[in-house]
Amino acid sequence: MYLGIDLGGTNISIGLVTEEGKILLKDSVPTSSERGYEAVVKDMAELSLKIIENYGIHLVDIQSVGVGSPGLPDVKNGKILYSNNLGFRDTPIREEFNKYISKPVYVENDANCAALGESTIGATRNYKDSITVTLGTGIGSGIILDNKIFSGSFYGGGEMGHMVICVDGEPCTCGRCGCWEAYASATALIRETRVAAAKFPDSELFNMISGNIKLISAKTPFDAADKGDEVAIEIIGNYFKYLSEGIANLINIFQPEVIAIGGGVSAQGDRFIERIYKNLEKLIYGNRIQTKIVLCELGNDAGIVGAAMLRN
Amino acid sequence: MYLGIDLGGTNISIGLVTEEGKILLKDSVPTSSERGYEAVVKDMAELSLKIIENYGIHLVDIQSVGVGSPGLPDVKNGKILYSNNLGFRDTPIREEFNKYISKPVYVENDANCAALGESTIGATRNYKDSITVTLGTGIGSGIILDNKIFSGSFYGGGEMGHMVICVDGEPCTCGRCGCWEAYASATALIRETRVAAAKFPDSELFNMISGNIKLISAKTPFDAADKGDEVAIEIIGNYFKYLSEGIANLINIFQPEVIAIGGGVSAQGDRFIERIYKNLEKLIYGNRIQTKIVLCELGNDAGIVGAAMLRN
Repeated sequence: MYLGIDLGGTNISIGLVTEEGKILLKDSVPTSSERGYEAVVKDMAELSLKIIENYGIHLVDIQSVGVGSPGLPDVKNGKILYSNNLGFRDTPIREEFNKYISKPVYVENDANCAALGESTIGATRNYKDSITVTLGTGIGSGIILDNKIFSGSFYGGGEMGHMVICVDGEPCTCGRCGCWEAYASATALIRETRVAAAKFPDSELFNMISGNIKLISAKTPFDAADKGDEVAIEIIGNYFKYLSEGIANLINIFQPEVIAIGGGVSAQGDRFIERIYKNLEKLIYGNRIQTKIVLCELGNDAGIVGAAMLRN
Repeated sequence: MYLGIDLGGTNISIGLVTEEGKILLKDSVPTSSERGYEAVVKDMAELSLKIIENYGIHLVDIQSVGVGSPGLPDVKNGKILYSNNLGFRDTPIREEFNKYISKPVYVENDANCAALGESTIGATRNYKDSITVTLGTGIGSGIILDNKIFSGSFYGGGEMGHMVICVDGEPCTCGRCGCWEAYASATALIRETRVAAAKFPDSELFNMISGNIKLISAKTPFDAADKGDEVAIEIIGNYFKYLSEGIANLINIFQPEVIAIGGGVSAQGDRFIERIYKNLEKLIYGNRIQTKIVLCELGNDAGIVGAAMLRN
């Protein structure tokens, strides 16, 4: 059995996972990264031991431990070189974790773990080559080639959210302007919805939130559009346009067998995928879309499963 | 020994190539694709036989034949599924060539062949993972992963020229708007230079071409900038900006060991590369550029060498 640790900005989620990727038991604790990495890793180890105990097995039954973390990993040395979210810089996760539990520890980027998780038992399980894109606060993305994570020569690749699709466009947290993330993340959709609500106080959109734009979530414009609100319909049309342009780029560059899309925004289900396909028809060279677009299946479990699947 | 065939829009160039990628003898004939593919392939075969004879060897000394063609290849079946340039559609290159010469024939996209050629004996020879980008009429590009061509699951990937960097931007030949090719190809540079010359008849740029914008080549703005022409300096600044944004995207997505840049525009040499590096410093996440940017070394021979290196 394996331990998969999804080290998030809010929670540390840990799962006991089988060789095949099935989660047997999982639990979580708050991350509170402001305490420093030593305290965070100590909690990771303690929760790991608790899960092992609760499931009624022993440490000897664990083959290895995988950790998915935001930021740039040093896969070889089991470190996180840099994570803005967690305040990590050259942080020796493996070394610190081994102070408590002496097992092989593998460290990866969290979005890469999610892609590996979907590729193991989720939406992309029947394909060798896939890309998984998660639309959330930012855009998380991971590339799977030949059933393995591909992250370039220095572990920093696979950052498709930071592919510029509008030169000189919206500012991005990465320092560039016009990144895909600045147009197609849930954050971007909320931003555009707030601006539109502020602009059109007569809209149903404005009415739904009683003018309090802080109440807007990524679901709000979809709900307003369902009620026929023209303002919301336009926001969503634009959102799908930018989302689809980025996906078309990925197809032209990678032409993977499948692209899986997840995150709260995609909760619209099949009609979410249908709108992307409809846009892609106009965007793909030769108009033959051979890449399948599907919804992610594992939700937050993807990161745990993928982390547990990390190997040497 | 191997035959490498670079099937271009203007010429068919064929080289007799060693196992190591050295061209022993090469020759070319006009393509004249309007005659139909049968005549073109017949010329390919006849020139192949002529080269073999002229070098004083026999057909039995040839292991295999590689063909690099514009368009979308069906690598498995040795066809070109579609090439706008050559008017090909589901064109059975292998089958037709085998009517004249009975050897294994491998068919690939020409830009992928150029990337493989540079990776064999050219600018990227010391690296396992590389991207080669050729700035010409369009942007040709090829991805080499683990010393092999990567073109996705259906042979249509690696088309980085058709990565949109400006949604709703300049129209591209592929049907999308805002493709990298529409900003960073030689064609794009010439277009912008013509527009600027037309706008500023008092510029040195205008003066250099005596107002005949048909005389503008990709070299013209560089020459005018060298003379201190402000209009040309701005054109070139913009050109490098868009070129660098696309390269930054490739680094964020692939983080390859090296990106090689070729084509007439890059004839500016080292200072061409220096300008790209200078722009990249502002664009790369974390500001650590680990990917090397270099100039292509093989020029037009890259396609011949790469085609000769194609294997099963």
